[in-house]
Amino acid sequence: MYVLMDIMVSPGGVGTSVSPYVAMCQKIFEESGLTHTMHGFGTNVEGEWEEVMAAVKRCHDDLHQAGAVRITSHMKLSTRTDREQTMYDKVNSVQEKLI
Amino acid sequence: MYVLMDIMVSPGGVGTSVSPYVAMCQKIFEESGLTHTMHGFGTNVEGEWEEVMAAVKRCHDDLHQAGAVRITSHMKLSTRTDREQTMYDKVNSVQEKLI
Amino acid sequence: MYVLMDIMVSPGGVGTSVSPYVAMCQKIFEESGLTHTMHGFGTNVEGEWEEVMAAVKRCHDDLHQAGAVRITSHMKLSTRTDREQTMYDKVNSVQEKLI
Amino acid sequence: MYVLMDIMVSPGGVGTSVSPYVAMCQKIFEESGLTHTMHGFGTNVEGEWEEVMAAVKRCHDDLHQAGAVRITSHMKLSTRTDREQTMYDKVNSVQEKLI
Repeated sequence: MYVLMDIMVSPGGVGTSVSPYVAMCQKIFEESGLTHTMHGFGTNVEGEWEEVMAAVKRCHDDLHQAGAVRITSHMKLSTRTDREQTMYDKVNSVQEKLI
Repeated sequence: MYVLMDIMVSPGGVGTSVSPYVAMCQKIFEESGLTHTMHGFGTNVEGEWEEVMAAVKRCHDDLHQAGAVRITSHMKLSTRTDREQTMYDKVNSVQEKLI
Repeated sequence: MYVLMDIMVSPGGVGTSVSPYVAMCQKIFEESGLTHTMHGFGTNVEGEWEEVMAAVKRCHDDLHQAGAVRITSHMKLSTRTDREQTMYDKVNSVQEKLI
Repeated sequence: MYVLMDIMVSPGGVGTSVSPYVAMCQKIFEESGLTHTMHGFGTNVEGEWEEVMAAVKRCHDDLHQAGAVRITSHMKLSTRTDREQTMYDKVNSVQEKLI
């Protein structure tokens, strides 16, 4: 099952500078070979369900190891059975209605 | 790793009556033996990471089988390493500050 | 326009004990006369759009005043024009399918 | 108060093709003069609190007018008092840790 995900990882108990922790997750998505794009409130990630979920688990594991005593992730997960669709297709579908 | 989750499952392409689909997920959480409580915008679920994630996967699988061609789940996942905490503890911690 | 909302307010830069800040928001919803119910990952609030939004704004204002230098709120907002529906109706609609 | 927002607007009761409705919201953000960037699961919007909230309200109003009988918006709202920060700054702050 192919899944499109949006994830925002919020480490707690690490002060106000959270960007090093967010960068750690970016590297995990990269190393996992998953298509991913960062935006101002999270990261779009897509791939096979098991691989995407394994990357999310690794984010929590690694950030805890790095000193974040609390982590809350906000996620959106989309699956569909009617046709294949990538994140790129979704954005394109809106943009062609704006021309 | 113990995880506290909030999940709102939104089936698409099934008309405006989504409650039968939400009820299917409730049964999955129940059958999975996970602690769960429904509220107006989702369900609080807690348990071991792998078991919670397996239940989420089963929700998507079963709802697709039941005719939902699109499903988007909105989730919050919290893990912590400093101490054990249940959903009940979290709510209690706020409520004792309101007395 | 009547709105059903779910809100989770996350103060940053205040250490790991966030419950006093969450309690402040509960009091604001109470004082605003809005129907509200807390759960493990937020609070269900319902009422007229302008009143609900004024309460959200007051949460951010008051928590900043109380020392939270960063606040992120995660919200869900539902409106519908086909019929009236309260949060209680939504939960009930699922629960009667579970019997 | 300056606010950074992420918003995903989900119209219900309109079939599976939601992109025309999402495009309507894009036009509202554009006409409102707010900085906005679309991604695969929503749109980053930033500006003064009152202006941003007025645009959100107009999205719900206009989509209802266009036939969406149910609308659920998933939003993240961030405010901070320690320093000014745009969405661009946030993304940059992570990206410079990835070099």
